[in-house]
Amino acid sequence: MAEPLVFRFDFGSPYSYFAAEQIDELAARFERKVIWKPVLLGAIFKHLGTLPLTRQPGMHDYSVHDFARSARFLGLPFAMPALFPIGSQVPSRAYYWLHGQDCALARRFAKAAFRAYFVEGRDITEPAHVLNIAAGLGVDPAALSSALENQAIKDRLRQETDDAIAAGMFGAPWITVDGEPFWGADRLPQVERWLETGGF
Amino acid sequence: MAEPLVFRFDFGSPYSYFAAEQIDELAARFERKVIWKPVLLGAIFKHLGTLPLTRQPGMHDYSVHDFARSARFLGLPFAMPALFPIGSQVPSRAYYWLHGQDCALARRFAKAAFRAYFVEGRDITEPAHVLNIAAGLGVDPAALSSALENQAIKDRLRQETDDAIAAGMFGAPWITVDGEPFWGADRLPQVERWLETGGF
Repeated sequence: MAEPLVFRFDFGSPYSYFAAEQIDELAARFERKVIWKPVLLGAIFKHLGTLPLTRQPGMHDYSVHDFARSARFLGLPFAMPALFPIGSQVPSRAYYWLHGQDCALARRFAKAAFRAYFVEGRDITEPAHVLNIAAGLGVDPAALSSALENQAIKDRLRQETDDAIAAGMFGAPWITVDGEPFWGADRLPQVERWLETGGF
Repeated sequence: MAEPLVFRFDFGSPYSYFAAEQIDELAARFERKVIWKPVLLGAIFKHLGTLPLTRQPGMHDYSVHDFARSARFLGLPFAMPALFPIGSQVPSRAYYWLHGQDCALARRFAKAAFRAYFVEGRDITEPAHVLNIAAGLGVDPAALSSALENQAIKDRLRQETDDAIAAGMFGAPWITVDGEPFWGADRLPQVERWLETGGF
C-alpha cells in the first residue's frame, strides 16, 4: 500500500477545519491513509516573524468573510468564534495523548474539537471544555487532565511543531503527498489530482 | 444584462495571469462581461506595509513551486521569470492608453503581455519590449511610446490603484461580482458558484 498522506494542522485554523472534514474521505478514494499531526501555528509564526491572516494589514475583514463563505461553499457548518486567534496547546496535547491510546479515538476527538470551536464557539483553550469534549467520546476526564500536564506530551507537541518548521510549513493546513507539500484547504483539488495521477 | 465583473490584477502577478486566462470565458458562460483593471500591487503593498508572497518569511520556495504546479494543474504554459517581482507601470499604462482607443485591443494586449512575461520571460518593465508586444497587435510604437509618458495615463493608473485600495484589495487577482470580492485565482470556483446561484 502506498505511503500515507501527512496532514499537519492547527486546531485554531478555519482552513484546517475545512480540510479536516474532507481529507480522510479524499485519501480513501485512492486507497490512502492520512496521518494527522496537530502543530502550534502560533509558534511557527513566531519562529518566522509572521502573523495570522486576520492580523495582516488590510486582511482582517476579507479573511473573516472568506472563512464563512468558504464554509458555505463546501457545505460545512461554521460560525466565527468570538475568541480568535487562539493558542491550541490544550486540544493538541489531548490529541497526542489520545493517539497513544487509540488512533481512531484521537481522530474522532480532533473532529469533535474542531466542531466545538468552529461550530459551537466553545473555548477549546480551556482544559475544562476539552475534557468535556473528550468525555463525550468516553475518555476519562481525570486521566486526560493529568496527561495535559505530562512533560512527554508537551515535548511531543513541541517536537511535531519543530518538525513542521523543518518540513517548510508556514501556514495551515499543510498536506504532504509522497513528499509533495500543499498549503491550504484550497489546494485539495490539486491534492486530488496528485493522488489520481501520481504527480503532474 | 447583469453588471460586469471587475477583474483587478497586476501584470507581475502569476495568479493574476492564471485568472486572466480564465475569467472572460467563465463570465461569458453566465452572460457576463468583465472589466479589466491593471493596478500596481507594489503600491498597494507599500501602502499596507506588506510584502509579495515570495518575500514573506519562509514562503519563497513554496510559492515559486506552487506557481509552476498551479499552471500545470490549470493546463497553462508557464516559466518562472528570472526578473521577479517587478513593477508593472509600463504595461499597465500601455493598457489604459490602448483601452481609450479600443477595449478589445487592450484586452488582447493584456493577454499578450502576461504571456510575454510568464511564458517567454521577457522583461515587461522595459518600454522597448512592451512596444514590441503592442506592435505585434498592430499598435504604432511611436504613439504608444509617447502615451507611456502621458500625465493623464499616469494619473489614471494611480487613480485605479487608489480605487483598488479603497475597494479593500490587498492581493491579486481581486475579482468583484455584484459587490462581492474574491481574492486569488483559487477562488474562481467560488466565483463560478456565485454567478450560477446569485450568491451563496
